[in-house]
Amino acid sequence: MRKEKDKIKIIPLGGLSEIGKNLTVIEYKDEIIVIDCGMEFPDEEMLGIDIVIPDITYLKKNVNKVKGIFLTHGHEDHIGALPYVLKEINVPVYGSKLTLGIVDSKLKEHGLSGSVDLKCIKAGDVIKLNRMSVEFIRTSHSIADSMAIAVHTPVGIIVHTGDFKVDYTPIDGCVIDLARFAELGKEGVLLMLADSTNVERPGYTMSEKTVGKTFQKFFAVAKSRIIVATFASNIHRIQQVITAAEKYRRKVAISGRSMENIMEVAMNLGYIKIRKNTLISIDDINKYPGNKIVIITTGSQGEPMSALSRMAACEHKKVTIIPGDTIIISANPIPGNEKLVSRVINQLFKQGAQVIYEALADVHVSGHACQEELKLIHTLVKPKFFMPVHGEYRHLKQHADLAMKLGLSPKNIVIADNGDVVEVTKNSIRKNGKVVSGQVFVDGLGVGDVGNIVLRDRRHLSQDGILTVVITIEKGTGKVIAGPDIISRGFVYVRESEDLMEEAKQLVRGALKECQEKHITEWSSIKSNVKEVLRSFLYEKTKRKPMILPIIMEI
Amino acid sequence: MRKEKDKIKIIPLGGLSEIGKNLTVIEYKDEIIVIDCGMEFPDEEMLGIDIVIPDITYLKKNVNKVKGIFLTHGHEDHIGALPYVLKEINVPVYGSKLTLGIVDSKLKEHGLSGSVDLKCIKAGDVIKLNRMSVEFIRTSHSIADSMAIAVHTPVGIIVHTGDFKVDYTPIDGCVIDLARFAELGKEGVLLMLADSTNVERPGYTMSEKTVGKTFQKFFAVAKSRIIVATFASNIHRIQQVITAAEKYRRKVAISGRSMENIMEVAMNLGYIKIRKNTLISIDDINKYPGNKIVIITTGSQGEPMSALSRMAACEHKKVTIIPGDTIIISANPIPGNEKLVSRVINQLFKQGAQVIYEALADVHVSGHACQEELKLIHTLVKPKFFMPVHGEYRHLKQHADLAMKLGLSPKNIVIADNGDVVEVTKNSIRKNGKVVSGQVFVDGLGVGDVGNIVLRDRRHLSQDGILTVVITIEKGTGKVIAGPDIISRGFVYVRESEDLMEEAKQLVRGALKECQEKHITEWSSIKSNVKEVLRSFLYEKTKRKPMILPIIMEI
Repeated sequence: MRKEKDKIKIIPLGGLSEIGKNLTVIEYKDEIIVIDCGMEFPDEEMLGIDIVIPDITYLKKNVNKVKGIFLTHGHEDHIGALPYVLKEINVPVYGSKLTLGIVDSKLKEHGLSGSVDLKCIKAGDVIKLNRMSVEFIRTSHSIADSMAIAVHTPVGIIVHTGDFKVDYTPIDGCVIDLARFAELGKEGVLLMLADSTNVERPGYTMSEKTVGKTFQKFFAVAKSRIIVATFASNIHRIQQVITAAEKYRRKVAISGRSMENIMEVAMNLGYIKIRKNTLISIDDINKYPGNKIVIITTGSQGEPMSALSRMAACEHKKVTIIPGDTIIISANPIPGNEKLVSRVINQLFKQGAQVIYEALADVHVSGHACQEELKLIHTLVKPKFFMPVHGEYRHLKQHADLAMKLGLSPKNIVIADNGDVVEVTKNSIRKNGKVVSGQVFVDGLGVGDVGNIVLRDRRHLSQDGILTVVITIEKGTGKVIAGPDIISRGFVYVRESEDLMEEAKQLVRGALKECQEKHITEWSSIKSNVKEVLRSFLYEKTKRKPMILPIIMEI
Repeated sequence: MRKEKDKIKIIPLGGLSEIGKNLTVIEYKDEIIVIDCGMEFPDEEMLGIDIVIPDITYLKKNVNKVKGIFLTHGHEDHIGALPYVLKEINVPVYGSKLTLGIVDSKLKEHGLSGSVDLKCIKAGDVIKLNRMSVEFIRTSHSIADSMAIAVHTPVGIIVHTGDFKVDYTPIDGCVIDLARFAELGKEGVLLMLADSTNVERPGYTMSEKTVGKTFQKFFAVAKSRIIVATFASNIHRIQQVITAAEKYRRKVAISGRSMENIMEVAMNLGYIKIRKNTLISIDDINKYPGNKIVIITTGSQGEPMSALSRMAACEHKKVTIIPGDTIIISANPIPGNEKLVSRVINQLFKQGAQVIYEALADVHVSGHACQEELKLIHTLVKPKFFMPVHGEYRHLKQHADLAMKLGLSPKNIVIADNGDVVEVTKNSIRKNGKVVSGQVFVDGLGVGDVGNIVLRDRRHLSQDGILTVVITIEKGTGKVIAGPDIISRGFVYVRESEDLMEEAKQLVRGALKECQEKHITEWSSIKSNVKEVLRSFLYEKTKRKPMILPIIMEI
C-alpha cells in the first residue's frame, strides 16, 4: 500500500505550448533535478523586450532540494536562462564538454564565470544523487555533444530525449546510442518525455552529411568568394564548410561575434578539425583572390544587426559584397523570421551576388526527429507513460496522437502545460495542481520589471503615439496660469498638423473653463475631462487613438 | 528614322521588389493606361499603419493623359488603393463583372459609389482608345474572373499576365485562354510583363479541384460541425465547400464581415451555385445538429480580429467551438503571418477541435504559376522583351534567369524598380530616368500624413516608452517655480520605480541649477541638458533608452 503512493513529480516550467525556454523539474521527495534552463525570444507583441526566461519561483522556494541543473545541449533555448537563474539559485550545472564550454563563455559575459560549479560529463556517465541518479545518453542534434537524460528513480526510469534526431552518419561519428534506449526499454521505462518539434513532418530528417554534399557542389563551381551563413552553434555545419574549403584550397575567415565566440570554444575544446593555415583573419580576406576565400558568418535568420545583414545593407566594415560572390544561407527561417531573411536575400541579389537558400538547394537539414524517427524512439523505449514536450500545443497534441497510434492508451498520456504538477506512480499518471510559472521579461538590465502594464502602454504608444497636454494652474483657485501646451510624438507629423493642434488646445481650454464653472477641482476629474474631450475630437478628425497624457502643474 | 524613335514607356509605380500594391503605368505619347491599383499591408516596422498605397504623384501630374484603370482581378493587392487613388484622379475603371462587384462594394464603404465610372468587360473584349487598345484575356487565379491584359500599341503588343496560374480544370470551367496567348505570340509580342510570385517553386501548381477532393474526404467522415476558414475572395474555394456541404446534406452559414460582403456580391452576380435552402443565418446554427452544419469563415491568416481568431479565443458572439468540431484552415500563411496562424491552431486544438491545415492535408493550392507554367507562358508568348513583375527582387531576378534559360538574351530583359521609366522601342528596351514613386501610409483617416519621422518616433516609443519631464520656470529669471515632474509610460513599472524616479528628479534639479549658474537661459539648451543628464543616468541604471520629452512652461 505504501509503495503504491510513492510518486515522482514532473513539473515543466517552460517548453510546453511554446518553442523555447525549456526547463523541466523532476522531483522525488526532497530531491529535485532540473533538466535544461533555456530562454526564448520575445513575441512581436513583447515590444522592447530582449529575451524571455522561465519564472523559477518554484525552484527558489525549494532551493534546498535542487541538486543540479542537467543540460541536454548548448542551444539558447536550453541554456540561455542560466545566467539569470544561477544568480537566484547557485546549484551545480552538469553538461557535456561543448555544452559547458558554451555555458562558460556565456557566464563570462555576465561576470559569473568561476562562481558556478560546472560539472563536465560525457555520454554514458551516471550522476548518483541521494535518491535519484541521472544518466546521460548520446543523441544526434544540430549541435555537437547532445544528450538525452535517463533519470533512475525508486518509482521507475524517466527518459527525457532532449532535442534529437536520428542521424546514422553524423559528422563526428558519435551516433545516437539507440542500443541504450533499447536496453532501457527492455528494463522498463516508466515515463518518456520526448521532443515534439517536427512531429508534423512525415518521414525522416536527412543526415547532416547531405548538407556537406551540397556545399561541395557549390564549392566546386564557385569562381569567386563564398560566404556561408549559418547558426553559430552548428559546429558540424561549420566543420563541413571548413572541410569543403580545404578540399577546394580556400582560406576560411569568420565574421560575427557569436560565430567568433563559438569557434573559439569549439577549437579550444577540439570540436573543429582545421588545418593550421586554413583560418585567416577577416582583416586579411582582401590579400587573397576571391576564389581562395570562404567567409563563415552569422545572420542566417536575417537578424538586423548580424554580420550578414550588415553585408547585405553595405554596412559591414570589413566585408563588401562583390558581384559574383556566392552566398549560401545554410538555415531555414525560424517562424517569424521569414520577412527578415527575405529582405537580406533581396539585398544580396541586388548587389549582384548569387544567393543559395533553402528554396533553391538542400543547404539545411533540421535537428529534430520527424515522424518515423519519433516512432523508432517510442518503439525502442516503450514507455508506460508518455508526456510530449518541446512544442506548441499543436505539436504536443499530434505527438500524443502518434503515441496512441503506436498503441499507447490515452489515459497513459498527459499533455501538460507549464506549471502543471504531473504526478507519476508505478501505475498512474495525472495532473495534480499547479505551481507558479510563466514568462519573465528581460529588458536591458531589468529582469521582471517590465510587466503587462508597461507592455500594454508600449503597444498603445507604438500604434498611435502620444499626446502630452500640460497645464499650469493656480493653487486654490484652479485658474489656468500657463498652457495648455500640447506636444505629440508618433501621432501626426507636427508641422502639417498645426491647425489640428490649435483646435485641440481650444477644446482643452473649453474643458478647463467648464471644470472651473462647475467647481470641479479634483485633478483626476479635470484630467479625465481633458482626456475625454481630446480623445473624441482626435478620433473624429483622424480615426486614431493616441495615448493622451494630461499633466497639471500647480503653483 | 522617325519610326525608330517611337517608344512606349512602362512605369511601375508598385509591385516591383515587393509583394503588393501593384500598379503599372503604360504610356504612349499623350495616352496613359494604368494596370491595377493595389494596396499592401504594412511591414512590422510600420507601426500603427493600416495600409500602404502607391505614390501616384506621376499620375496626378499627367491626369489628362490617363484613359483609365484596367483591373486584372479583384484581390486587394490589385484593387485596394482604388478608393484613395480615385479621390485624386477620377478616371474610368475597367474590370470583369466580379472584379467590379468587389470594387463597388469597396467604393460604397468609402462613400464613393456612383461617382466612379465602372466599365464592365468580359474576356475577349477590346477597349479601343485613341492610340492604344486594351484587350482582356481569360486566365486562372485564386479568384474568379481573372484577366491578363494585352495592350496593342503602334510600337507593338505588350502582354501583362496579371496574377495567374494554369489550371486545366478550374471550378467554373473558364480555362485560361492559352490559345490567345499563342496567337499573340505568333503575331509577335514586343514585351511581356509576367507574375513572378512562385518562380522559386519547381513544377506545377495543382488545380483548385484538388482542394475540393480533400474537402470531400473530411466531409465524408466528420461527425460534428465543420468550420472552413479561407480567403473571402476565393469564390471557387467557397463554391467547393458549398458543393461538399450539399453532397453531405449540411447547411452552410457564413461568418466574418468580408466573407459576408463577398458572398453577397458573388451570389448577386451569379458566381456561386447554391441550392435554395442550403444557406442559413449564423444565428440559426444551433437549430441543427452539428453534423448538419458547415460554417465558412474569415481568419485563415490568423488576423487577430477575424471571426476564426475570435472563435479560437472564445470571444465569438455566435460560434463557440465544441470538442469534436472539424476546422479546416484552407490557406497557407502569407509570409509574416506564420505565428498568428499557429496561435489560432493551438487555441483551436486546446478547445478540443480537430484542426486540419496545410502541414497535415492538401487543403490549399496557390493561385500563382510555378516554374513549368511560367515556361509555358514564356514559350507561347515568346516576347521580344521581358520584364518580370509582381515579386520581391529575389523573385524578379530568378524570373529573369528563367527567361534566359528559355533563350532570351540578358539585354532583352529589364529588372525594374518602382518609379523606373522603362522605354521600349521596336528594337530596344532600357531604363531611362525615374519618376516619383513610393509608399503612402494610410493611418485612420490620414493618407500620407504619417511619414518617417512619426514612424521613427513610434518605433522609439514601442521599444522603451517615454519619460516626460515638466518644469515651470519664471519668465526672465529662469527660476524653477514648479517641478520637475516626471511621468513615464511604457518605460518601467511606475510603482516599483519610485526610487529611480526620485533620483532622476534630483539629477534634473541639479542640471537646472547648473544652467542657472551658467546663465544658460535658452530653452533648447536647457532642454538638451536635461535630456542628456537623464539619458545617461537611465541608460546606466536600466540599459534602456526611453524617449525623453522635456517640457518647460514659463510664467
